Amino acid sequence: MSGRLAVVGLGPGDARFLTGEAQETLRQAAAVYGYGPYLDRVPAQPGQTRHASDNREELARASAALDHAASGARVAMVSGGDPGVFAMAAAVCEAIDTGPPAWRAVDLAIVPGVTAMLAVAARAGAPLGHDFCAISLSDNLKPWALIERRLAAAADAGFVIALYNPVSKARPTQLTTAFETLVRYLPATTPVIFGRGVGREGERLAVVDLARAAAEPADMATLIIVGSAATRVVARPGLAPLVYTPRAAVEAVR
Amino acid sequence: MSGRLAVVGLGPGDARFLTGEAQETLRQAAAVYGYGPYLDRVPAQPGQTRHASDNREELARASAALDHAASGARVAMVSGGDPGVFAMAAAVCEAIDTGPPAWRAVDLAIVPGVTAMLAVAARAGAPLGHDFCAISLSDNLKPWALIERRLAAAADAGFVIALYNPVSKARPTQLTTAFETLVRYLPATTPVIFGRGVGREGERLAVVDLARAAAEPADMATLIIVGSAATRVVARPGLAPLVYTPRAAVEAVR
Repeated sequence: MSGRLAVVGLGPGDARFLTGEAQETLRQAAAVYGYGPYLDRVPAQPGQTRHASDNREELARASAALDHAASGARVAMVSGGDPGVFAMAAAVCEAIDTGPPAWRAVDLAIVPGVTAMLAVAARAGAPLGHDFCAISLSDNLKPWALIERRLAAAADAGFVIALYNPVSKARPTQLTTAFETLVRYLPATTPVIFGRGVGREGERLAVVDLARAAAEPADMATLIIVGSAATRVVARPGLAPLVYTPRAAVEAVR
Repeated sequence: MSGRLAVVGLGPGDARFLTGEAQETLRQAAAVYGYGPYLDRVPAQPGQTRHASDNREELARASAALDHAASGARVAMVSGGDPGVFAMAAAVCEAIDTGPPAWRAVDLAIVPGVTAMLAVAARAGAPLGHDFCAISLSDNLKPWALIERRLAAAADAGFVIALYNPVSKARPTQLTTAFETLVRYLPATTPVIFGRGVGREGERLAVVDLARAAAEPADMATLIIVGSAATRVVARPGLAPLVYTPRAAVEAVR
C-alpha cells in the first residue's frame, strides 16, 4: 500500500506567507522531513515525527521521504520558498526517475509557495513587471561557462534577471564575475536589488547601480534582481524608492 | 493625510492558495478595487466598498485606487496570481511614476502570491527545477519581433520557458508562430505543459511534444511551460506522468 509525499513550499520565512493549503498539509502529515532550519518553522504536532537533514543532502533526503511514503505513511517534506524553484521538487522527481519502482506509486503532491524573487520584487515595487528569468549562480550542478552564457543571453535579450544562490564560501568571486559580464550588455546605471532574509526578522533591502553592485555584501540568504535597460527607480520623499520595469517595452529591436 | 494601497496577489484561484498576509490585508481594507472576476473571489465584509473594472483598464484602475488611498483610506487592489508577474504591481508603479506628487506619498505595499507558472509547475512535477524564464506573448505592449527574439535567445541558452497570455481573440496564430520558433532550437520531443485554470474548479493539465503543441487548445486562462532539452517525462503506472528538469545541467556548453 502506497502513501503520500507532499513537498510543501514554506515561502520566504514568516508564517504569514504560508498558503492555507501548505498549513493544512503540514497539519495532516505523520512525518515531516527537511533541512533543520526549515523544519524549525513548522509548529510541532502531537504524534508527528521530525526528520532533519543537512542542506546538501537533497537526494538522500528525497530517498528517505519516498521510502517512508512508499510504506503507506502520509509524509511531508518542507522546502524554502517554492519547492519547484531551485528547491526540493526537482530532487524528489529525480529520485523517483532513478529509484525503485515502488516510488513511482507514491501519491506525490507539490504544494506551491511564494519563491524568493517574488518576495523581494514585492518589497522593491515591480521589477519583474516585464519578461524576466531566474538563474542559479551555483556551479555545483552546472559549469560556470554555461552560467556566463545564460547571463549574457538574458541581458542581451532584455530580460530582468533574478539570481538565486549568488555566493558561497567556496565561490566568493563568482558574483563579481557575473556583474562584470552583465555590465557589458546593460547600462552602468541599471538598478540592482539585493534582498537579504526578506520576509524574516531583520530583512534588508538595498538598491544600487550595476556599476557599483560588486561592492554590495551578499550571501546565500540574498536574492538579487538585476533590472533591464528599461527598469526605472522612482524617488519618493520620506519613503524607500520604488523599482519597477514598465509593462511596455520601449527598447529597439535589433 | 496619506493612506495605504496594498496590491494583493490572490494566487491561482481557490482560496486555499491565499497567504495569511493576503487574507489579513483584504480583511482590513475599507475599499477593494479590481477586475470583476477577481473581486468575486474576495469574501464580502460589512462596510467595505467594491470597485470593479474591466480587465483592460489597468492604468485607470491604478489611478482610481491611488486617488482613493491618497485621500487617507486603507485601500486594497486584487490581482490574479502574484501582482508582480504580468499583473497590477507594475501598472500601479507606472501610475505613481507619471502621476501627481500626492501619489508618491501613499504607503504602497505589494502582497506576493503564487503566480500561475508555479501552480502549473507544481501540478506537473518540477519543470522549473533548473534555470527558467517567463515571457508574456501579448504584443499589446511590445513588438512581436522582440517576443520572437526572446523566445529564440531563451531556448538557445537552455532556459525552460513559461508563456503567459499565450493567445487571445485578437491574436489567434501567435502561439503557433512561437512554437515554430522554439522548435528550431529544441528537440521535437521537448515536453510542453498546458495548464488551464489550474487551482480552480475544472482545472486541466496536458503534456504534449513540442512538435505537436500547436494542435493543443489554449486560451488566456492557459499557462504554458516549454521544457528545455534536458526536461524529462517520467511515466507512472496509474498516475499522471511527472515532468521535471534535472538540477544538474548535462548539455554541452558552446
